[in-house]
Amino acid sequence: MGDGTPRFLAACRGQATDATPVWLMRQAGRYMSEYRALRQKYSILEMIKSPELACEVTMQPINAFDLDAAIVFADILPPLECLGLSLEFIKGEGPVIHNPIRTSQDIENLTEADPAEGLWFTLDAIKMIRRELDPRGIPLIGFSGAPFTLASYAIEGGASRNYELTKTMMMGEPEMWARLMTKLSDLVGKYLLAQANAGAQALQMFDSWVGALSPDDYRAFVQPYSKRAIEIAATAGVPIIHFGTDTNGMLEEIQAAGGDVIGVDWKIDLDVAWQRLGTEQPIQGNLDPLSLLAPWDALKERAAKVLDRAAAVKPDRAGHIFNLGHGIIKTTPVDNVKRLVDFIHEYTGQ
Amino acid sequence: MGDGTPRFLAACRGQATDATPVWLMRQAGRYMSEYRALRQKYSILEMIKSPELACEVTMQPINAFDLDAAIVFADILPPLECLGLSLEFIKGEGPVIHNPIRTSQDIENLTEADPAEGLWFTLDAIKMIRRELDPRGIPLIGFSGAPFTLASYAIEGGASRNYELTKTMMMGEPEMWARLMTKLSDLVGKYLLAQANAGAQALQMFDSWVGALSPDDYRAFVQPYSKRAIEIAATAGVPIIHFGTDTNGMLEEIQAAGGDVIGVDWKIDLDVAWQRLGTEQPIQGNLDPLSLLAPWDALKERAAKVLDRAAAVKPDRAGHIFNLGHGIIKTTPVDNVKRLVDFIHEYTGQ
Repeated sequence: MGDGTPRFLAACRGQATDATPVWLMRQAGRYMSEYRALRQKYSILEMIKSPELACEVTMQPINAFDLDAAIVFADILPPLECLGLSLEFIKGEGPVIHNPIRTSQDIENLTEADPAEGLWFTLDAIKMIRRELDPRGIPLIGFSGAPFTLASYAIEGGASRNYELTKTMMMGEPEMWARLMTKLSDLVGKYLLAQANAGAQALQMFDSWVGALSPDDYRAFVQPYSKRAIEIAATAGVPIIHFGTDTNGMLEEIQAAGGDVIGVDWKIDLDVAWQRLGTEQPIQGNLDPLSLLAPWDALKERAAKVLDRAAAVKPDRAGHIFNLGHGIIKTTPVDNVKRLVDFIHEYTGQ
Repeated sequence: MGDGTPRFLAACRGQATDATPVWLMRQAGRYMSEYRALRQKYSILEMIKSPELACEVTMQPINAFDLDAAIVFADILPPLECLGLSLEFIKGEGPVIHNPIRTSQDIENLTEADPAEGLWFTLDAIKMIRRELDPRGIPLIGFSGAPFTLASYAIEGGASRNYELTKTMMMGEPEMWARLMTKLSDLVGKYLLAQANAGAQALQMFDSWVGALSPDDYRAFVQPYSKRAIEIAATAGVPIIHFGTDTNGMLEEIQAAGGDVIGVDWKIDLDVAWQRLGTEQPIQGNLDPLSLLAPWDALKERAAKVLDRAAAVKPDRAGHIFNLGHGIIKTTPVDNVKRLVDFIHEYTGQ
């Protein structure tokens, strides 16, 4: 960039860049041997709650690949601990909440810790990571789960197939739902804001499970709270990426809830999504993460297609951030990640 | 109907009806005590493979509710047994294929039994059910899994989160994939055709897991085979419903593969889907199955919204078949099913 703005941040503002910026959701993770080595010694929560370890893990993919942004190593669920929920990652089972929210009294009993205190470790990690990244001119992304995704974990007590308890509360106890979602939107908004204040130069709100809803239920029971969280976070003035999966029947509703950049999954042609959102809307996506398991030629072809679809909407691809449509999976070959990141820059560079 | 055509079949042809027809995916199932009583004595495969039991189970919801169509009790997976795959439903785990397809040799080794022979039990069940239904003027739907959904089970060996093995073969071994999908499209087409020849008055092809793909991969690796299966089945001359989930980023691609009726999940407004498909396209859907767990007023409101959205596209709702966006779940209260079915008729009846 002429003015020294990193590509990623320029693209978040819809500006043209010298090459398409690229980062990968869950880029710090189990597919990297450096990460696995640390995980042999520490649990996920230990790594998240130690700023030094979180910093080290955040930097692993930055040191290995020519990525245009780092994302702080954390998880979408620790904010729930600020409400007094007891979170554990159980091997082979994933995250579990030991005291899930089931009754009105459970909601009354929630504590309201300031995320700046309750999640001090991620904020400290952000400060530490910035000292590593700044000399290299690479921006740092902070993030949080969105209110609905946090609610679904808090109510189900873990991952869920049908979101049975969540939807039962949402549809059957709308006032209870509103009380819970108000607390969560406050928490998410304040947590994102605190991350920006600590030094995050962009923020991503992950509404990973919101695609389980009908658009009508999204509008009535989620959109106001996502909007509220984004509004609180937006006071920091850093760009916000609003991401969901399985939302291709309601992309416009996700967009209406706010965010400077809309993240899309791989289940829609990028050009179709961009046209629906409007070409002035910065957009992030949208390679199938499983493409990274394919031989390089097949992966390259699929990555090129995403970039070609971006160029079909805007020849200079201004406002497109290349990413996967969801997190990178653990069996991904590291070599494919390296080649992919380099290819994005080569293919789009001037 | 003046000409005696059942509502459901008239709607499949896009004709106006005296009320909106309604049936529910997986309407014969564990939410009914009559079904659970039989399941205490028989396994799922025993019930499917006994025409008498399959007939009995098929009729359970027909006897309990004012449904406009029956669907033969069967499963999407038994066709795989015609290829020599060994299928078992394991309690708590779901379907398992004991000899999944992993290599080119595995594909060579597949047998090619005629589905009319290999799946004789479902064809016999269809003949038996027709004798029960005909006096009541209720049509019978036959069905099959679609080639991609069958391929994913055959390759993964069971349910899957990421379809890692399936996509690895599809992306990395396209010739192998083509051989497998050709066999599967043949099998699916012939099986659907055999069901129509046995007496099924409509057919549904379930591509339950195809929503895991990008539209580009769908077009290249699935659409030709779904089209081929539908073309074979269509020679019977009965209407074909083409259903997928999480396909709202590529509804038009599903439609282009064929089918007289397009089934949509609940993650899109019905009017938006109908406009995208064109108002002459008969459409089936699209209530969130979880709505049935809600109190009646909340359920009614959601059902009315689906019907209102249908009327927003076509005031007479010609060509709309009311259904859930996916299968009914086992914790559904029977009373809600009864009230829902009656409400659909009352709300839309003249």
